[in-house]
Amino acid sequence: MLTLYDSLVSGNAYKVRLLLTQLGIPFERVEVDLRSGETRTPAFRALAPLGRVPVVVLDDGTVLAESNAIMCYFAEGTPLLPSDRLERAQVLQWLFWEQYSHEPYVAVARAWVAYFGVPAGKEAELEERRERGRQALKTMERHLERCSFFAGERYTVADIALYAYTHVAGEGGFDLSELAALQRWLNRVREQPGHVTIEAR
Amino acid sequence: MLTLYDSLVSGNAYKVRLLLTQLGIPFERVEVDLRSGETRTPAFRALAPLGRVPVVVLDDGTVLAESNAIMCYFAEGTPLLPSDRLERAQVLQWLFWEQYSHEPYVAVARAWVAYFGVPAGKEAELEERRERGRQALKTMERHLERCSFFAGERYTVADIALYAYTHVAGEGGFDLSELAALQRWLNRVREQPGHVTIEAR
Repeated sequence: MLTLYDSLVSGNAYKVRLLLTQLGIPFERVEVDLRSGETRTPAFRALAPLGRVPVVVLDDGTVLAESNAIMCYFAEGTPLLPSDRLERAQVLQWLFWEQYSHEPYVAVARAWVAYFGVPAGKEAELEERRERGRQALKTMERHLERCSFFAGERYTVADIALYAYTHVAGEGGFDLSELAALQRWLNRVREQPGHVTIEAR
Repeated sequence: MLTLYDSLVSGNAYKVRLLLTQLGIPFERVEVDLRSGETRTPAFRALAPLGRVPVVVLDDGTVLAESNAIMCYFAEGTPLLPSDRLERAQVLQWLFWEQYSHEPYVAVARAWVAYFGVPAGKEAELEERRERGRQALKTMERHLERCSFFAGERYTVADIALYAYTHVAGEGGFDLSELAALQRWLNRVREQPGHVTIEAR
């Protein structure tokens, strides 16, 4: 059976857990302790050279890393990853945007504030990351004022990727209360069949 | 004809320029002036809501952003993006890794040092980014000691993505001289049919 090296603290890991559940794909979950630095141990690096969770080990032993790449692998051939070339590229556009322009700000601020503590001397950097995070959330709001979902006008892995850290952004000090379109979209994502929360294991 | 909003300073833009050239796809190039902040102007934002180059405008007016997503769009159906589900996921794994664990360090250090100046008060952050960049280059070296290319044992968009900023890493103060496998890979990329340099327009 598929093994998911997982963390209940990580939104990136939650993306894969949510997708596999919605697709009805069984998996064995191995919790990796991020607080004790388990991803930096030689044993974990031997398994996963890129040194992060989530990582999946397929039935044949193949190891695949990077949450958004893992999602594309499992969503291939399902409605969650369009087969149309342009719609597929639009999904990928938002997946890359999430990792470059959203996660380093919204997720890192949450990780520092709610889980790991703000690193020494990084107080100013936290404020910078919060400002960039607010910009990312506004970019989402502007898109969602015109569209119900991020790509192809339906629920795809792009929505899962952006939901993962957006719905817990409050833990990092972000205020979503004035982002009405974004809040409606969060509810649309929660209403999808088979949805599970970030705490579900 | 396809329009590419481009920048000769940007390795991300170079990825698309190189790919389109290798695929023989004609395009009109519009140079965007990053030094004067053109991507932050209302006119550019109206065209490209995500506010970065590269951006392509397709024949029907559709706008597509994010260099790695744009590459996947054009490489679909060509040998540069495998059709095998696992090989495709491995390409994506490296594309996401490039944007999250390589570009923010190798490319940003180069941008600060060689083009835009180190922002006030960011000297310590530059050193941190260089350290993370060195780690990323070592991760590439370890992979390339075992494999000729990043995915599917052949040249794909994953190689283009990682070549873009790695081959100019020296401009950011990175020393590649001891990374022998990486240097051999840089040469393999340069030897691909239709290769053009980052200066070619």
